Amino acid sequence: MKLDAQHLQAHNQQALADHRAAFDYTAARLTRQGLDIPQLIDKIAALQIAIPSWALGTGGTRFARFSGGGEPRTLEEKVADVGLLHAINRSSGAISLHIPWDIPEDAAAIRALAQSHDLVFDAVNSNTFQDQPGQPLSYKFGSLSHSDKAHRQLAVQHNIEVIRHGEGLGSKALTVWLSDGSCFPGQQNFRKAFQRTLESLQEIYTALPADWKVLIEYKPYEPNFYSTVIQDWGTSHLLASKLGKKAYSLVDLGHHLPNTNIEQIVATLMMEGKLGGFHFNDSKYGDDDLTVGSIRPYQLFLIFNELVYGMEDPASINPTPAWMIDASHNVKDPLEDLLQSVEAIKIAYTQALLVNREELEAARENNDAARAQEILQDAFRTDVRPLVAEARQRSGGALNPIGLFRHSNVRRQLVQERGLKTISTGL
Amino acid sequence: MKLDAQHLQAHNQQALADHRAAFDYTAARLTRQGLDIPQLIDKIAALQIAIPSWALGTGGTRFARFSGGGEPRTLEEKVADVGLLHAINRSSGAISLHIPWDIPEDAAAIRALAQSHDLVFDAVNSNTFQDQPGQPLSYKFGSLSHSDKAHRQLAVQHNIEVIRHGEGLGSKALTVWLSDGSCFPGQQNFRKAFQRTLESLQEIYTALPADWKVLIEYKPYEPNFYSTVIQDWGTSHLLASKLGKKAYSLVDLGHHLPNTNIEQIVATLMMEGKLGGFHFNDSKYGDDDLTVGSIRPYQLFLIFNELVYGMEDPASINPTPAWMIDASHNVKDPLEDLLQSVEAIKIAYTQALLVNREELEAARENNDAARAQEILQDAFRTDVRPLVAEARQRSGGALNPIGLFRHSNVRRQLVQERGLKTISTGL
Amino acid sequence: MKLDAQHLQAHNQQALADHRAAFDYTAARLTRQGLDIPQLIDKIAALQIAIPSWALGTGGTRFARFSGGGEPRTLEEKVADVGLLHAINRSSGAISLHIPWDIPEDAAAIRALAQSHDLVFDAVNSNTFQDQPGQPLSYKFGSLSHSDKAHRQLAVQHNIEVIRHGEGLGSKALTVWLSDGSCFPGQQNFRKAFQRTLESLQEIYTALPADWKVLIEYKPYEPNFYSTVIQDWGTSHLLASKLGKKAYSLVDLGHHLPNTNIEQIVATLMMEGKLGGFHFNDSKYGDDDLTVGSIRPYQLFLIFNELVYGMEDPASINPTPAWMIDASHNVKDPLEDLLQSVEAIKIAYTQALLVNREELEAARENNDAARAQEILQDAFRTDVRPLVAEARQRSGGALNPIGLFRHSNVRRQLVQERGLKTISTGL
Amino acid sequence: MKLDAQHLQAHNQQALADHRAAFDYTAARLTRQGLDIPQLIDKIAALQIAIPSWALGTGGTRFARFSGGGEPRTLEEKVADVGLLHAINRSSGAISLHIPWDIPEDAAAIRALAQSHDLVFDAVNSNTFQDQPGQPLSYKFGSLSHSDKAHRQLAVQHNIEVIRHGEGLGSKALTVWLSDGSCFPGQQNFRKAFQRTLESLQEIYTALPADWKVLIEYKPYEPNFYSTVIQDWGTSHLLASKLGKKAYSLVDLGHHLPNTNIEQIVATLMMEGKLGGFHFNDSKYGDDDLTVGSIRPYQLFLIFNELVYGMEDPASINPTPAWMIDASHNVKDPLEDLLQSVEAIKIAYTQALLVNREELEAARENNDAARAQEILQDAFRTDVRPLVAEARQRSGGALNPIGLFRHSNVRRQLVQERGLKTISTGL
Repeated sequence: MKLDAQHLQAHNQQALADHRAAFDYTAARLTRQGLDIPQLIDKIAALQIAIPSWALGTGGTRFARFSGGGEPRTLEEKVADVGLLHAINRSSGAISLHIPWDIPEDAAAIRALAQSHDLVFDAVNSNTFQDQPGQPLSYKFGSLSHSDKAHRQLAVQHNIEVIRHGEGLGSKALTVWLSDGSCFPGQQNFRKAFQRTLESLQEIYTALPADWKVLIEYKPYEPNFYSTVIQDWGTSHLLASKLGKKAYSLVDLGHHLPNTNIEQIVATLMMEGKLGGFHFNDSKYGDDDLTVGSIRPYQLFLIFNELVYGMEDPASINPTPAWMIDASHNVKDPLEDLLQSVEAIKIAYTQALLVNREELEAARENNDAARAQEILQDAFRTDVRPLVAEARQRSGGALNPIGLFRHSNVRRQLVQERGLKTISTGL
Repeated sequence: MKLDAQHLQAHNQQALADHRAAFDYTAARLTRQGLDIPQLIDKIAALQIAIPSWALGTGGTRFARFSGGGEPRTLEEKVADVGLLHAINRSSGAISLHIPWDIPEDAAAIRALAQSHDLVFDAVNSNTFQDQPGQPLSYKFGSLSHSDKAHRQLAVQHNIEVIRHGEGLGSKALTVWLSDGSCFPGQQNFRKAFQRTLESLQEIYTALPADWKVLIEYKPYEPNFYSTVIQDWGTSHLLASKLGKKAYSLVDLGHHLPNTNIEQIVATLMMEGKLGGFHFNDSKYGDDDLTVGSIRPYQLFLIFNELVYGMEDPASINPTPAWMIDASHNVKDPLEDLLQSVEAIKIAYTQALLVNREELEAARENNDAARAQEILQDAFRTDVRPLVAEARQRSGGALNPIGLFRHSNVRRQLVQERGLKTISTGL
Repeated sequence: MKLDAQHLQAHNQQALADHRAAFDYTAARLTRQGLDIPQLIDKIAALQIAIPSWALGTGGTRFARFSGGGEPRTLEEKVADVGLLHAINRSSGAISLHIPWDIPEDAAAIRALAQSHDLVFDAVNSNTFQDQPGQPLSYKFGSLSHSDKAHRQLAVQHNIEVIRHGEGLGSKALTVWLSDGSCFPGQQNFRKAFQRTLESLQEIYTALPADWKVLIEYKPYEPNFYSTVIQDWGTSHLLASKLGKKAYSLVDLGHHLPNTNIEQIVATLMMEGKLGGFHFNDSKYGDDDLTVGSIRPYQLFLIFNELVYGMEDPASINPTPAWMIDASHNVKDPLEDLLQSVEAIKIAYTQALLVNREELEAARENNDAARAQEILQDAFRTDVRPLVAEARQRSGGALNPIGLFRHSNVRRQLVQERGLKTISTGL
Repeated sequence: MKLDAQHLQAHNQQALADHRAAFDYTAARLTRQGLDIPQLIDKIAALQIAIPSWALGTGGTRFARFSGGGEPRTLEEKVADVGLLHAINRSSGAISLHIPWDIPEDAAAIRALAQSHDLVFDAVNSNTFQDQPGQPLSYKFGSLSHSDKAHRQLAVQHNIEVIRHGEGLGSKALTVWLSDGSCFPGQQNFRKAFQRTLESLQEIYTALPADWKVLIEYKPYEPNFYSTVIQDWGTSHLLASKLGKKAYSLVDLGHHLPNTNIEQIVATLMMEGKLGGFHFNDSKYGDDDLTVGSIRPYQLFLIFNELVYGMEDPASINPTPAWMIDASHNVKDPLEDLLQSVEAIKIAYTQALLVNREELEAARENNDAARAQEILQDAFRTDVRPLVAEARQRSGGALNPIGLFRHSNVRRQLVQERGLKTISTGL
């Protein structure tokens, strides 16, 4: 299905007066505080968050999977779903593919399809944490770090193929997430596993096109439950430093031990010019992959506070990171969940843009912790939803994305088109 | 020092136009959503948070203590400080004493002093986690759970004395926090420690006046680092159930293991009619005792969502809990910190009052997780500061508490009165 | 396949001299310390650990499953596998079924088959965390706590059917593990969810035969990642108390928040006479379901120290708990894993039996933490493997279970019988 | 007091027959497994663990401190206490000073005193986490990272003075532990704090003698509870890499977030040749500073497994790390606690020496996780206490250190000499 633009406009029209009043009030207040509202709206509108192809179906746990209906059955349908999201929120103008779940048979056709939805292809993701039917060797005991060279070579070749697929789509980065590690003390030689991973990555690095990046993800545990080869940002950064200037670390919000100060890691990586990408989700316990902003919205704001500081600093040596949602949806409609996640990201980004940096730095120089908190919380407590809605509306999107989605009966139409018992590839 | 009421009014006057615009906007929006603003303001104004006597000086860690200046040297000065806070925010109209740090030599005089500041005395706190000079037996290895009966009796008698002090002041509850536990596996017989604690508490319970409560705090660790006798709400509730209907559990936000769902504990205890008190603070790692709302404001809101649900439910069997701040202030001015904490509590309370409970229950019955999230986050994202300020102002308090505090040079005056090198009793 | 008893004896024969020397040395030392070796060996031999039917195949994670070969395809083959384990270690003489994964079509035949392997049926487990093909209503949003009564009734009826299956097999307990909970704040009304669960359990309780128990498991998170209805022992105990004297709590080692003092929970539940069962596994991060004793063997010993204290106390009001392994096996041969798990349990149990309780209680009364640690660690550091091997051998089992398993090429034979691509039912 | 050597010998004599039997049995078994017992005993005997000067008195928490009696009042008495420990266990032949708690007025005299006890001086520790009386500027808001240059300079100069003191004593390393960080979001600019710390460390580095190292400790939290400038090994390693080849990371076991795989960090740092030192203690929750081996003895063994692998690897580029206990003693006699800690370290070291590395590597190459676990646990489950006792006895120490300590009434004599109410400097 495609969203009817007239329907969207009509839906907006109903909410317009209320929105206008809220926006005017908010804009007036912030203008008095010295903010440039048009510039602010432009920045908000410009932020685009890639949608991963696997997020369009219902996720599952090791215990069960309860799929919803109308889930995309093909890559084309996945592109259509992201196109639908982007039509609604004008903020999801990129799609991130996962190979081999979504191998584009005809890259040019898929690219044209994406363009028709105003979408580009963000980083491509390799998968060496599962075995595919007919695969000659198993990743049960690892891939790029495997004790056996033939296994490592298979994984290296797979990554190179993923790069080739990405080139055809216009991607400019490869994201490598390894589940390699061990479940029991003694199972793995930590040092050899690191060295083998480094050597494998070096082969992949060599195959990178000149204008590409490789983004190295880290994670402390799961699916291995004793050790993970790339267990933390320090290990990812060590690998990226040894690889060279096209290699970067990628931060996934859910990939940290309890209580980790993630915003400080973000600041450190940006300081070193090595933050290449970001996977957004939220969690309470582990890598729970919940809707962004659903559990710890203040932490999300604090992270954006560092991201904005790093991006707006004229002296920054860090490239703009690749932004992607990486959530998995068990009890919500996947598309509603993505709309909520993108909204939460834009709200946190907007709040971070409101922070008065001169005053903040002055408070810091004076060690005035109470004042620094007031400055941050003033931004966080400001209701910026009218600003985000305004940016979305000016870009042609909906004032109320979830409202439009429900009012348009999108899911019902998708079920009619695709059936009730569909399962997305890769899930 | 006492705050000059005219000065407060003059300070408010400067911010009034801006406040009025914000309040009118907010009130109009919420009225359209069906909220009764005058009733809302009354509820916000009515919420009073007790200030513990130990929170008025700079706290410390096991590594160091960096005291500020002008800290209260006597109980009278502590009452004066709370009076100052209450004059500013009209929300701190109660003081919670810690015995023996603050023994009232002349209860009637202290009570009159408090009344002159419009303060009452909330729960009194016993202390059997430290030895006092001249104490005949040491609490090094426990108090109410001690293996030796004479040690237990000393602790029981102390608690009974604390009740007697509290009676003189008009308190109606005794809060018992035990540090009893063990640092090493094997050190303590868990079952005997529980039984001894129960027996000791039964003796204290017998000494409670008819209209008193005993509030039993729990904590997983610190200062004992292997086990704590009352390690969790389950243990506290087991003790309270065995003691009788005057015994309740007390929840301190910092006293939980990583990632605990505290709001669910709150709901369970209120369901059982056994939530007697609440200690507010915030934390990232352990019992960090940071300013309320400074780390996890959304969690605070979710907790208040349960508290409001429990309090407003006509079928509720739970009495209104005793509210107290229990933070410790290492790098901020303690009075500024308390102003921020009370503000954060009132903001969370107000947000919780905004939740549309009928719609929420409808979403829950339909298992509509996305909608339920929208309802909660709509309340949380609403900028309720104008409502809280309005309630404060109508009660005679400051529109901008921290601003007034700084503008009035309160700390400078306190230093002049009391000196730079004061240390609060008990710290 | 069945294990050849002569082969087992021949294998033992090779190790016998070495074992004899080790046993004699160990027995002599412990005898000098006052221990009664024959009695000790009898106790060790008597401890039987139930094997759950789902542990016989390779487990998986939400990311992938890498099955091994020769996994049991039917309930009969599962019984055969447990029989094989029991023939090797003489310590796994019970099997715990999971319904509907293992519905016994002909209970009498299955029971006879089990008897032929010297096996009995331990607690039966219901499953309301997955939907089965053709199920009229889904458990996606809960089962015993579901907002809709018809859903709850379906789950209640399933549990009653499980009891009926269990009666046919000679089981005497029903284990209820609920995944019910919520993934997002607001999704669930905590109090209603508890009340509905209680009412559902009351219906099940009513259907319990007179000599049965119901064991109520708790877990803080997974597969729900915001809240779980029965989140901790306190909630489980509250339910069990309200249900009545046939209801007990069940402790699964992996179902706790980070750093929980589990041994203290065990002590408290036994003190209250409410510890009904125990699920053994090990973990480093969450509910990792690793081999028992592979990560925290000292914690396992400390838990057994409480279990032994509770079981050997003549005044104890707690029945002997049901012991079961509940691990999931991703990278090891499942049968080897189970042999290691049972061995680890028996080692911890034996170490706990060595603890000199009189001296320990004396040290505790004197608050002699250093001495208490010495007493516990003396037991833990003692190499008790010869005692465990002796008990096993006297019962007809193997001196070296893993050695025998490998030497006998058990897995190769199972693959030959069953094929390489089998997947156990329920996985 | 000094330990009477004859008394020690007499005490050993009583236990000798029993020890001899145990040692002979153990040695015979291990010899059959291919181990070279004399070489093993030499290695065990050679391992020396430094005692920090602050560990000789009772530690405390932020809540209370319950000092014991007879604690050392002067640096000379601290040296005497370490001398006493070393006379008993012959494994504590080094002392690590903390400046300014233990400023040696006459370095030559202190050095001679130490030599008379057969002690050398290990790494010296600076202290910029507390203010000293008369200090011109406060470290309340940081030291090497402070926003004000004068504060940073004060801290730099202090570190240089500590180096000078260390030179006089024969130390060869400076350990820097910074508590610098922040308690509230916004308080600190993460990037500036890192850069200032780096610049300060560069000044200190320049002042290092040619044969010295600087060891950079990391810690996630406490005494700052929102962020710490050097929060993890990655940050420490980044600083050490930027500083140069004399800079190393130092691992303190208690300075990690919950569930961190510390042994993998150890392996990574040794692989990079950057592990300079090690602080031993144990903990269940945070930086609990409990007796080594009292909570997680298997983790300690796994760490030693990496340390031994790194040290025995002929290709290793890592120097032998500085070993130090860093525990704090709240409920035990500090000297007994240190005896237990050293014993636990030696036991874990010995167990790690037993690991059959060829077989382990073979299992790893085959991804035989069950076998790898068997190999490690075989070493861990072996009762190596007779080996450790033999090494101690051959070096002139006691067979049973705690037994000798108690039998000799050491504490009673110290109380008689020093009094009951002594408090160690720095506590």
